[in-house]
Amino acid sequence: MNQEELKILLTKIYNKNLSPDDAIKQLQNLPYENLEFAKIDHHRELRNGLPEVIYSQGKSIPQLKKIIKSLQKADSNILATKLSAEKYKALKPFLPKKAQYNENGQTLVIKKDTPIEGKGLIAIITAGTSDIPIAEEAAVTASLLGSKVETIFDVGVAGLHRLLDNIEQIKKARVLIVVAGMEGALASVVGGLMAQPIIAVPTSIGYGASFGGIAALLTMLNSCATGISVVNIDNGFGAGCIAHRINLLGEKN
Amino acid sequence: MNQEELKILLTKIYNKNLSPDDAIKQLQNLPYENLEFAKIDHHRELRNGLPEVIYSQGKSIPQLKKIIKSLQKADSNILATKLSAEKYKALKPFLPKKAQYNENGQTLVIKKDTPIEGKGLIAIITAGTSDIPIAEEAAVTASLLGSKVETIFDVGVAGLHRLLDNIEQIKKARVLIVVAGMEGALASVVGGLMAQPIIAVPTSIGYGASFGGIAALLTMLNSCATGISVVNIDNGFGAGCIAHRINLLGEKN
Amino acid sequence: MNQEELKILLTKIYNKNLSPDDAIKQLQNLPYENLEFAKIDHHRELRNGLPEVIYSQGKSIPQLKKIIKSLQKADSNILATKLSAEKYKALKPFLPKKAQYNENGQTLVIKKDTPIEGKGLIAIITAGTSDIPIAEEAAVTASLLGSKVETIFDVGVAGLHRLLDNIEQIKKARVLIVVAGMEGALASVVGGLMAQPIIAVPTSIGYGASFGGIAALLTMLNSCATGISVVNIDNGFGAGCIAHRINLLGEKN
Amino acid sequence: MNQEELKILLTKIYNKNLSPDDAIKQLQNLPYENLEFAKIDHHRELRNGLPEVIYSQGKSIPQLKKIIKSLQKADSNILATKLSAEKYKALKPFLPKKAQYNENGQTLVIKKDTPIEGKGLIAIITAGTSDIPIAEEAAVTASLLGSKVETIFDVGVAGLHRLLDNIEQIKKARVLIVVAGMEGALASVVGGLMAQPIIAVPTSIGYGASFGGIAALLTMLNSCATGISVVNIDNGFGAGCIAHRINLLGEKN
Amino acid sequence: MNQEELKILLTKIYNKNLSPDDAIKQLQNLPYENLEFAKIDHHRELRNGLPEVIYSQGKSIPQLKKIIKSLQKADSNILATKLSAEKYKALKPFLPKKAQYNENGQTLVIKKDTPIEGKGLIAIITAGTSDIPIAEEAAVTASLLGSKVETIFDVGVAGLHRLLDNIEQIKKARVLIVVAGMEGALASVVGGLMAQPIIAVPTSIGYGASFGGIAALLTMLNSCATGISVVNIDNGFGAGCIAHRINLLGEKN
Amino acid sequence: MNQEELKILLTKIYNKNLSPDDAIKQLQNLPYENLEFAKIDHHRELRNGLPEVIYSQGKSIPQLKKIIKSLQKADSNILATKLSAEKYKALKPFLPKKAQYNENGQTLVIKKDTPIEGKGLIAIITAGTSDIPIAEEAAVTASLLGSKVETIFDVGVAGLHRLLDNIEQIKKARVLIVVAGMEGALASVVGGLMAQPIIAVPTSIGYGASFGGIAALLTMLNSCATGISVVNIDNGFGAGCIAHRINLLGEKN
Amino acid sequence: MNQEELKILLTKIYNKNLSPDDAIKQLQNLPYENLEFAKIDHHRELRNGLPEVIYSQGKSIPQLKKIIKSLQKADSNILATKLSAEKYKALKPFLPKKAQYNENGQTLVIKKDTPIEGKGLIAIITAGTSDIPIAEEAAVTASLLGSKVETIFDVGVAGLHRLLDNIEQIKKARVLIVVAGMEGALASVVGGLMAQPIIAVPTSIGYGASFGGIAALLTMLNSCATGISVVNIDNGFGAGCIAHRINLLGEKN
Amino acid sequence: MNQEELKILLTKIYNKNLSPDDAIKQLQNLPYENLEFAKIDHHRELRNGLPEVIYSQGKSIPQLKKIIKSLQKADSNILATKLSAEKYKALKPFLPKKAQYNENGQTLVIKKDTPIEGKGLIAIITAGTSDIPIAEEAAVTASLLGSKVETIFDVGVAGLHRLLDNIEQIKKARVLIVVAGMEGALASVVGGLMAQPIIAVPTSIGYGASFGGIAALLTMLNSCATGISVVNIDNGFGAGCIAHRINLLGEKN
Repeated sequence: MNQEELKILLTKIYNKNLSPDDAIKQLQNLPYENLEFAKIDHHRELRNGLPEVIYSQGKSIPQLKKIIKSLQKADSNILATKLSAEKYKALKPFLPKKAQYNENGQTLVIKKDTPIEGKGLIAIITAGTSDIPIAEEAAVTASLLGSKVETIFDVGVAGLHRLLDNIEQIKKARVLIVVAGMEGALASVVGGLMAQPIIAVPTSIGYGASFGGIAALLTMLNSCATGISVVNIDNGFGAGCIAHRINLLGEKN
Repeated sequence: MNQEELKILLTKIYNKNLSPDDAIKQLQNLPYENLEFAKIDHHRELRNGLPEVIYSQGKSIPQLKKIIKSLQKADSNILATKLSAEKYKALKPFLPKKAQYNENGQTLVIKKDTPIEGKGLIAIITAGTSDIPIAEEAAVTASLLGSKVETIFDVGVAGLHRLLDNIEQIKKARVLIVVAGMEGALASVVGGLMAQPIIAVPTSIGYGASFGGIAALLTMLNSCATGISVVNIDNGFGAGCIAHRINLLGEKN
Repeated sequence: MNQEELKILLTKIYNKNLSPDDAIKQLQNLPYENLEFAKIDHHRELRNGLPEVIYSQGKSIPQLKKIIKSLQKADSNILATKLSAEKYKALKPFLPKKAQYNENGQTLVIKKDTPIEGKGLIAIITAGTSDIPIAEEAAVTASLLGSKVETIFDVGVAGLHRLLDNIEQIKKARVLIVVAGMEGALASVVGGLMAQPIIAVPTSIGYGASFGGIAALLTMLNSCATGISVVNIDNGFGAGCIAHRINLLGEKN
Repeated sequence: MNQEELKILLTKIYNKNLSPDDAIKQLQNLPYENLEFAKIDHHRELRNGLPEVIYSQGKSIPQLKKIIKSLQKADSNILATKLSAEKYKALKPFLPKKAQYNENGQTLVIKKDTPIEGKGLIAIITAGTSDIPIAEEAAVTASLLGSKVETIFDVGVAGLHRLLDNIEQIKKARVLIVVAGMEGALASVVGGLMAQPIIAVPTSIGYGASFGGIAALLTMLNSCATGISVVNIDNGFGAGCIAHRINLLGEKN
Repeated sequence: MNQEELKILLTKIYNKNLSPDDAIKQLQNLPYENLEFAKIDHHRELRNGLPEVIYSQGKSIPQLKKIIKSLQKADSNILATKLSAEKYKALKPFLPKKAQYNENGQTLVIKKDTPIEGKGLIAIITAGTSDIPIAEEAAVTASLLGSKVETIFDVGVAGLHRLLDNIEQIKKARVLIVVAGMEGALASVVGGLMAQPIIAVPTSIGYGASFGGIAALLTMLNSCATGISVVNIDNGFGAGCIAHRINLLGEKN
Repeated sequence: MNQEELKILLTKIYNKNLSPDDAIKQLQNLPYENLEFAKIDHHRELRNGLPEVIYSQGKSIPQLKKIIKSLQKADSNILATKLSAEKYKALKPFLPKKAQYNENGQTLVIKKDTPIEGKGLIAIITAGTSDIPIAEEAAVTASLLGSKVETIFDVGVAGLHRLLDNIEQIKKARVLIVVAGMEGALASVVGGLMAQPIIAVPTSIGYGASFGGIAALLTMLNSCATGISVVNIDNGFGAGCIAHRINLLGEKN
Repeated sequence: MNQEELKILLTKIYNKNLSPDDAIKQLQNLPYENLEFAKIDHHRELRNGLPEVIYSQGKSIPQLKKIIKSLQKADSNILATKLSAEKYKALKPFLPKKAQYNENGQTLVIKKDTPIEGKGLIAIITAGTSDIPIAEEAAVTASLLGSKVETIFDVGVAGLHRLLDNIEQIKKARVLIVVAGMEGALASVVGGLMAQPIIAVPTSIGYGASFGGIAALLTMLNSCATGISVVNIDNGFGAGCIAHRINLLGEKN
Repeated sequence: MNQEELKILLTKIYNKNLSPDDAIKQLQNLPYENLEFAKIDHHRELRNGLPEVIYSQGKSIPQLKKIIKSLQKADSNILATKLSAEKYKALKPFLPKKAQYNENGQTLVIKKDTPIEGKGLIAIITAGTSDIPIAEEAAVTASLLGSKVETIFDVGVAGLHRLLDNIEQIKKARVLIVVAGMEGALASVVGGLMAQPIIAVPTSIGYGASFGGIAALLTMLNSCATGISVVNIDNGFGAGCIAHRINLLGEKN
């Protein structure tokens, strides 16, 4: 039941074509439909240019085509994450020209023509060069959501000076995303030096006792530095989302 | 907003004291409140004699007293689980005479005076004598919910004949609860022999590589026998609940 | 030893062609054979149309061919689970025309000509589109066993309204199967809203700290909602079996 | 070397009492000392009323006394976390009157007389009553740091309506902290409904396969809802810190 | 149904006091009872002096008393394992004089007056002195079952010569039990040097990354030496049982 | 230093060509070399027909060729385990005609012409057909070592009667090897029924929460039945070795 | 800011072209830049011939080319680790003639023409032949850093004499690296026999409950022998680095 | 057999009182005894003042008394680790006056009167104050072994400047021990800044996802900085031993 239908129902009561008691019966199912339109309203306010997001892993080419087609009809910005180069190649003939594929970050973006004006700066920092793909996933996500993004790569704690040399640039951001695999210590060090909210992203980079990112995840969760919270291993998309949500605070929408 | 209030609102429209447009604004919050009364209705139908349940671990004596007092006002059947003997002793002076404490199962039951007529039989089977407390938690739960319960203890697979001797009794039940710690193999063996739905409850009985019940849990989840599903380690209460839900099927309420 | 043979033996005693002492020796092996025919009887009662099930993983094409051939001789309904498209392709030339392969669910069904009349409704609900294959494995299983099945896909908790919109359809079922990967929270939410027995199936969908389905498994085992039990990760078949066993209760066979 | 000392050194050069070459040698150690005063400066700006924090676990009474005494000299706001009632009792005779102990949250606060004017609202939501201590740790932390805090307890997903009834209150906050043990699904549901940044805190509440909070932790890390990041199990303090850092954005200090 | 009863039934048929058809009905339950007496027969052969075993953990004093009393009636040898000194103290007044408590091994033995004549030697070897209690549990078990036992303590691999000095004594045994905590490497070294079957028992001795015996367990399971199999962490009883079963081979009973 | 060399040295002393003091210096290195020939002696006694064993995983074709060639020179029986069909194919042209490859068990055997006379029976029992490869690895190993072997496949606990039908055959063996994946409950059931020593082999068969064999491993380690010990997951070779060592007891070599 | 720039600034003060107060402002950023040149100095002293190291996993061919090219310009010794044969093949046309690829150890070395004079001996010992690749990674690393290296392969504890035969050679080294997979017991045995510092490297060799090297890792961490410390699973490079650092002590640089 | 006895035997040969053949038989057991005296010799060289070490956990007061008494007879330096204050209190009346108990480090030291002259400096660095007990265990161990030790406490990465302020002091040491719990990042940061060999000690300090030190352990094992190796969680003793072994290199003994 949408607002139109609700209004028709209430008008029927107003016009005494429906008794309050009968109306109550019809409204039994209202909450859910009602909730839906409430959600829609709420979303409208929120979603100025918010992309629809497709998690591509475990989806077939036909499924992906169908979802993308349906979203294009709805005139949404579209973001597909974890999209392998093979899948992209198979999808490419069916995509509009403006579709942008980022092979590093494994993201596909199809933007509407109305430009996104980024505001508020998110700095995305990686410990190593192997962490860059996840950082790019975060960067593409946050950019498409409407944040300005700067990236600082390969400043891990084994060479502390590399980080310290970039302190001034990092200070300018409102929110920090720290992406690190192996032992993931970069988040703690950045947390000790900087005052912004930090979203830490463990990556699955490493071998042996890195256990596919568990080592970095635990490091970040146990950080003795304050102001750090953590997303799933390799979840650049999730980091981009929460960093953007934070970045919106105090900004005009 | 409860039904009464909704009716008042709709009557205002009916009497043209409120326009449909203004009513829509007031209904914006309806879904949630509406959902609540829907839940209550639904619950009323469901809860003939359904107890309110208190998970006692991590709750202080004053908190427990307050919750029990509030539930007694509502004239509910009450079930407290994982209630240690120490806590029970501290609560005892404040409990009504009809309160029944089961030290093995660590349950406290306060029943309303209207009797519960059990129907449909649930058989609760344990591998060892050390699994009995969890079995009793399940038995108390299912009984209070309104199922008939029989228990068969200490028929683990190390002496298969003990199980086989009780097959006839087990056959009479509509639903089986199998409670086992250590390697938890009993669920598979019962599943291979019997045709009823089986709820398997791993217990934390054991030592070393039983890892507090993980061994039994994994055994049960990986059972090669069909017709088995599993609840949390030591979760007699949960087993009693789902077994009762199953037991209701095809029974008159 | 079947009943016929047992009768012949006892008649020999009755006719004094066999002494009680010699009979005892021959009966030494009886229990097991006896148990077997008891099982067979029991099975006959149980198995109206029950399929023989082949777990295909780790079996070679020749092994699969041989098992299927033997089952066809026995005129059983046949269900093969976890059968990859590659294996199906290799088997196809040897299969009867009525064989049905479900690529999504990775199931192969060969039904006898006597139709299965489904009764009682099982609703199978997934959190995401990536969980559909496991849901289809459950659906094919329960259908072949003789239950009616409806599926409701992609109603995960990130968009709660999608679930709430389908509440009426879900209410009609006798048993619910909830299939979810990632954090698996859908089972708890459905458990909080609905009154039927719920079989929760964690899937291996996700990455990083989903640990191949462990996250969803733990979520479901720890559910604070009552009336939920859990099967192995990706075990659509097992969920279909127990849901059907439950669905039989109170139904005429 | 502090600013005063640096100025003396530079003045010596200015007055030609020290050559640039000799000064370089003395400045060899400067970075670290320099970094220290830089940190101090930076902190001064940040720390309007920022407490010094003492993690009390594994510290003896004499150690705690000594640390508190030293911080009082420095005229800081003081926050001690994870301080057991026993330790508090032992410390009490030595504490100033204005010291406030929160037994639930296991926090001790000693505030300076200059009042903290809270700004920006953080809503702290718990799934159950057993999660309240961690929520209070977060509340005390964020309050002392200078945020306004509201708490909404016991709105877990097993009774969804309880959450939905509080939506309006939750909407008013700038940042949300969601505290949940057992299966921790509340974070996903809140994440699906609300648009603010969410800090999820898994708690160790539960038993069996909750594994001391791992189940809730994994649920939160794998959340399919966007806008969620996670801190350590039972880390109410950490959640309060990052929530406050986020809450500062766009606020005048 | 025991053999006597079966014979009576068969004689009734023989004497035409019972028809074969009626006998079949009475024999329906036979398998299980039959299995039982088969088990008994089989056991009688096996159990010359075999003790009844009570796993004491998680059993109350009244339960223990009742079990011991019932076993004494049956005139069995009795072995209770994992019996704490506290529990023993509570039981002591009710035990017969011949009861022997081993505080190290936490075992209680009540032997019948007919002496057990040990045969075949089992050597039990520990890596450290802290592993002795588990070794004693194994020794008491195997002795009571009827094996001769020698113990060699504190010959861990950190001082290889200690082991090598005892090679001659170890060579005399038919079966070896190797008990080791921490890294558990002793089993591999003994396996490389000796030709007997080896039962390896990991103990929970150690700290940190010994994880309560997991380190030793994994070491023993992965041993590159041949001829080693493993029982549960701290399971001296289990090691004693299998070692005795092995030790029986080729011995006259 | 071998026996010959030692004799030469001692003879030099005897002939006063070497003083005792100088001899002591030369004997400083003796222990190890001495140990070696002791080991050799010991081995000679043990190794009537004992194969040299090659663990093939992680070894290249050239390495395998070289090792096999060197062993053939030494006129040993040869056993290669975990040898994939691909590797075998590459090795085949270089192998003698009598080489036997078992694709199921992934074993390669090259026997000397002197026949191995098997003695003592080992029964190898599997829960499912997918466990057969590991059972065959065990069978090939024990046979080559000189034991008689019988195999009983696919008698898992889901259909208990299948096991019970084979009890008589199983009773004839001196040692049992039980091979099972998934929940691994077969070992416990066999342990409850039979009196021989049992070597349990968990396999990696299964999916989801079988965790590559961990579920079966834990089940077997925690078995409530006595007389069971366990080898590594998929370690058919190890089971064959220890079973043979046990089988030798009381047999004439 | 480098030393030159700092001197210019200080000279400006000296020449009264800059006031001390203004200088302080400019020095605010000094620490980090200052730290950088300090690090460089320190490195110069340390890095006589120290290679730049490239961790090749997860890096693309173009990335590797670019990094190698940049390092060659800087005239460094270059070491790439974990470089697969495939990647090497793709890189080969672009590498200088003096580039040395070690396929076993998966290392690529490009040495400057100035020879490295090795000093101090590191002995690298492996348990099996499958551990050799990791040992070679360690050997190549330590050699390039400037240590002398000897390797002793396949002396695992299953045949203790093989180790004992090589004791004399091992005694000559200043530092030992022990490389072992499976149960990793070699480190403990070497630790019990020898007096040098030992770096233990667990490898991922093994199957089943070796869990990709966890078993060996835990064994080494829990070693009851003293003088052992441990690096990550398969981390030959790390072992080579720390062994070389240790080997430098007391040696002239 | 000790050297004396060996000389007597060889002299008998020399004097033709024993034939070489008979001598060989007597020497059969030599290796082990021989090995023992070799070990003793080797030890004598190594053990100038080396303490005998007692791991106190899991040992009773009578056992501890007996071991200490026996070691005192042997006139050794004695070190007991992990000795609780309770146990110390019970032992105290039996200890000599010179016994030194360190309650923080839980160590007991009984030194011989000959003074230990420390040489070479080991710096022991902790991240937090709660890590001090393990640091003291390391310090007491290394001191008693004969190293000079300095300690630098509470310089964790959350306040990087605290570490940087102590760089000069740390530079003076030959070996570094870094002790850290929680996320354990300090080892990586020190490893990036310093050139000495580093022994990293994870501690069990922390809560929640620190998992009793696993988080710190994994961090240290995965460190991207070179020159780090790791000992067991809370193993200050082990760190002290290996640091001392390293510290001996290049020093005169």
